Amino acid sequence: MRREVPPGDNRPRAVCPACSVVHYENPRIVVGAVCHDGPRLVLCRRAIPPRIGFWTFPAGFMELGETAEEGAAREAFEEAGVHVDIDRLLGVYSVPQRGQVHLLYEARMRDARHAAGEESLEVVMRDWEDIPWEDLAFPSIRWGLELAFEARQQSLWVPRMTSSSAPAGTDAN
Amino acid sequence: MRREVPPGDNRPRAVCPACSVVHYENPRIVVGAVCHDGPRLVLCRRAIPPRIGFWTFPAGFMELGETAEEGAAREAFEEAGVHVDIDRLLGVYSVPQRGQVHLLYEARMRDARHAAGEESLEVVMRDWEDIPWEDLAFPSIRWGLELAFEARQQSLWVPRMTSSSAPAGTDAN
Repeated sequence: MRREVPPGDNRPRAVCPACSVVHYENPRIVVGAVCHDGPRLVLCRRAIPPRIGFWTFPAGFMELGETAEEGAAREAFEEAGVHVDIDRLLGVYSVPQRGQVHLLYEARMRDARHAAGEESLEVVMRDWEDIPWEDLAFPSIRWGLELAFEARQQSLWVPRMTSSSAPAGTDAN
Repeated sequence: MRREVPPGDNRPRAVCPACSVVHYENPRIVVGAVCHDGPRLVLCRRAIPPRIGFWTFPAGFMELGETAEEGAAREAFEEAGVHVDIDRLLGVYSVPQRGQVHLLYEARMRDARHAAGEESLEVVMRDWEDIPWEDLAFPSIRWGLELAFEARQQSLWVPRMTSSSAPAGTDAN
């Protein structure tokens, strides 16, 4: 790969010297869902790096062929074994130093079933008052839970927008 | 490239047979801004395919190293020569058949300057009542303008979420 500005473009891209195909690198979308069943919400303890053993709500990279809301619901099922309906967007969290945008939703569980997926050591239902604020995996998870905590008794919620100012290469995404 | 399920993953990815590097393909983010200066808004006539000659507000692929809002403001400057402040999110439009998520914002122009960028044949200021609804470039542009039209006199706006149901391979993104 060579770095060069393709014709008609305005910034350097990775270009294959053999075939001249331009490999665009773009930010990736993380979709996450704060999933609740009445007065309790789902928390997963991470089984994979980074931040093994720390708590999160279901979240992960959006895949091709799905909508953002479908992706958030898929992550909820894969990581926590919960079936949810996505209710609303809580916030949009940009992480420019990692090339990520996190779309964080509030979701309602269809029933009380939950089970740890491959990426979770354990999945628990917790009261809102018992969120382990000191042991959360990432700043975006804390931010999402703070929004969900604030939004949970409001019928109208305007999603927030923020961005991370943490330097690249830290665990603080 | 070979299609195979990498260890610990649950779906086929493009894997290099020589070096085993997994090339993840993920949805891309389109950031757009309905830019207004009081009673008028910015419209650009596309100079590039697809849909050359049709109207749009500034929008394009988000780049690495920027927040979503910065990306929307950058597109406004690159395509229409306008300096804007991003006010709020209008809506999130998923296009699963193209692997895209469009984040569409409302933006306020800092002054009346505007000028066609390389991707625009012309850039004009139009009254809200004079939007060329029949000559818009894409369904997502129509949707964004409809939201902006509805939102423009509301102090509180809850962003909408929708998705395209158009088949892949059409111009209807």
